Amino acid sequence: MGSKVMTYRAIKLVKRPVTDINNEHFELVTLNKPELKSGEVLIKLSHLSLDPAMRGWMSADEESYIPPVSLDSVMRASGIGHVVESQNEDFPQGTRVMGLLGLAEYAVSNGKGLNKIPDSLSAEAIMCVIALPGITAYHGLFEVLKPEAGQTIAITAAAGSVGSLVGQMAKHQGLTVIGVAGSEQKCDWLKDTLNFDHGLNYKDANFAEQLKSAAPQGIDLFFENTGGLAQSIIFDMMNAHGRIAVCGMIAEYNKVAPAPGPSWIGIIKKRLQIQGFTMPDHFHRIGEYGQALAAMLAKGELAYRAHTLNGLESAPDGIQLLFSGENQGKMIVAL
Amino acid sequence: MGSKVMTYRAIKLVKRPVTDINNEHFELVTLNKPELKSGEVLIKLSHLSLDPAMRGWMSADEESYIPPVSLDSVMRASGIGHVVESQNEDFPQGTRVMGLLGLAEYAVSNGKGLNKIPDSLSAEAIMCVIALPGITAYHGLFEVLKPEAGQTIAITAAAGSVGSLVGQMAKHQGLTVIGVAGSEQKCDWLKDTLNFDHGLNYKDANFAEQLKSAAPQGIDLFFENTGGLAQSIIFDMMNAHGRIAVCGMIAEYNKVAPAPGPSWIGIIKKRLQIQGFTMPDHFHRIGEYGQALAAMLAKGELAYRAHTLNGLESAPDGIQLLFSGENQGKMIVAL
Repeated sequence: MGSKVMTYRAIKLVKRPVTDINNEHFELVTLNKPELKSGEVLIKLSHLSLDPAMRGWMSADEESYIPPVSLDSVMRASGIGHVVESQNEDFPQGTRVMGLLGLAEYAVSNGKGLNKIPDSLSAEAIMCVIALPGITAYHGLFEVLKPEAGQTIAITAAAGSVGSLVGQMAKHQGLTVIGVAGSEQKCDWLKDTLNFDHGLNYKDANFAEQLKSAAPQGIDLFFENTGGLAQSIIFDMMNAHGRIAVCGMIAEYNKVAPAPGPSWIGIIKKRLQIQGFTMPDHFHRIGEYGQALAAMLAKGELAYRAHTLNGLESAPDGIQLLFSGENQGKMIVAL
Repeated sequence: MGSKVMTYRAIKLVKRPVTDINNEHFELVTLNKPELKSGEVLIKLSHLSLDPAMRGWMSADEESYIPPVSLDSVMRASGIGHVVESQNEDFPQGTRVMGLLGLAEYAVSNGKGLNKIPDSLSAEAIMCVIALPGITAYHGLFEVLKPEAGQTIAITAAAGSVGSLVGQMAKHQGLTVIGVAGSEQKCDWLKDTLNFDHGLNYKDANFAEQLKSAAPQGIDLFFENTGGLAQSIIFDMMNAHGRIAVCGMIAEYNKVAPAPGPSWIGIIKKRLQIQGFTMPDHFHRIGEYGQALAAMLAKGELAYRAHTLNGLESAPDGIQLLFSGENQGKMIVAL
């Protein structure tokens, strides 16, 4: 028994962004289903994940942690689906899988980098918690920042898919959690739904004063997702021996000339440790992290919010919402 | 038997620097020798150490790693001397000691923070290798950067008291060593006497090109002593998973507004680790580090160069030489 699909739709990268991403960078195309070779599977995708990392994958920067997407090829994206045809006994027909399968309705995989996922979890729970946002939050918090009860943590893009999980996990570890976001609505969600100690709007004129009042003893740990003005204000409030996990710089990716960082004098005076990280270095730990996250999810410790668009053609708009900050939760495309 | 000294000369801090240090910040005074209390010793100093850290000790910044020197008190400095009067059985008369004894001809100590040193080592060897420069170089290289044979290391202020030792130790570990300094004479010394692979002058218009040619495979480790333009040029050449030890920022200390650092985007892309450190956090390891350094010295692995001035009154000029970069080696005042 095989799938009857002969063609499927996909979104190709056709132009590289210099500053903002727009619809001209993408093209919706119809592809012919290839014949499967031995070891390959055909996956019918049900959900696609839209992530800030896509901006880096779209640019031609060879120095990045992962090669750029080639022009005129299907745009890279993480997705969930079911195997509908299989020439690989590790992934029989019907297996539910997740992987970097691209912005497309179907994908062919040789099984490399493909992870099996249980049917019991909703696509939203997987995309919002178990997938890239969750493993990124888990690694950054526990492996990079190494939190201790009683410490104060500041998180930028705190209402984002990663930041919202970092803050909830930190709260369960007994930390004072300060979430920084860009709207009153997001800040209210952090405080009222996620139980953060503080939700501060970096666009407020007196943001620095609010932060001082929220962290009278200073800041021990900083989970950085944005760059921009908030970075230097939080940096200046770091305590001696503080640690900073640099996970994202969403305010800076679209700029031709990114803003400089703080002077390194503060790094000496306060003996700070700053560590950049990206998850492809740690994909061998996905299994371990996923189990820990699933356990937290089962205990009801992790609330999440999906912002779901419908249909493959909505993906370019969804990517642009990520960078304007207008998304309300993890961006997902349901097919 | 006691010393007959009734008065001695000392240099007090009488004004805090805003930008450059000058003679107006200091005053040469004559003090009366106090009566020793139980547990105290009187030390006759033979050599004083002048270090870049003094700039930080002179300013009123309460955020630093060590409290500032109070106005109208003796300026803090590390020194070597002999106990000439003792009310402390741990340090009998005649004991040779080192400690933060101040810019003075004599000092009273209760023994706290005082270290015994053998008479067999010259004051220059102790000041240049075993004391602050050596333990700083040792800690920064082995504990922060964790070098591996085959890696490439860049060192700023490489002809300075710390940098010159870092490079020699790295060379003995099998690294490619690139020293950055501010004059042809210093660069020649790095290559010809210290056996560095490269000695580059950051004041050369084509410094960036020279660095690229010296490090065709990029830079794995960066031992930062200066700040300034060299910082961003080296930072841009860091390899993935590179490590940076931030030890000093001598180009920036005297500025009212220090120059910003590089954008943190590079920290993510290259998954860099940046660690600031200051030695007072690690003084409990002085014994261990000192033994390792003495062993290297005995094997002839560490060349050093002292720039010795004579007489207490020369100390303010010596401090200013450190910041103009005109010193030729570790600044010492012989009394």
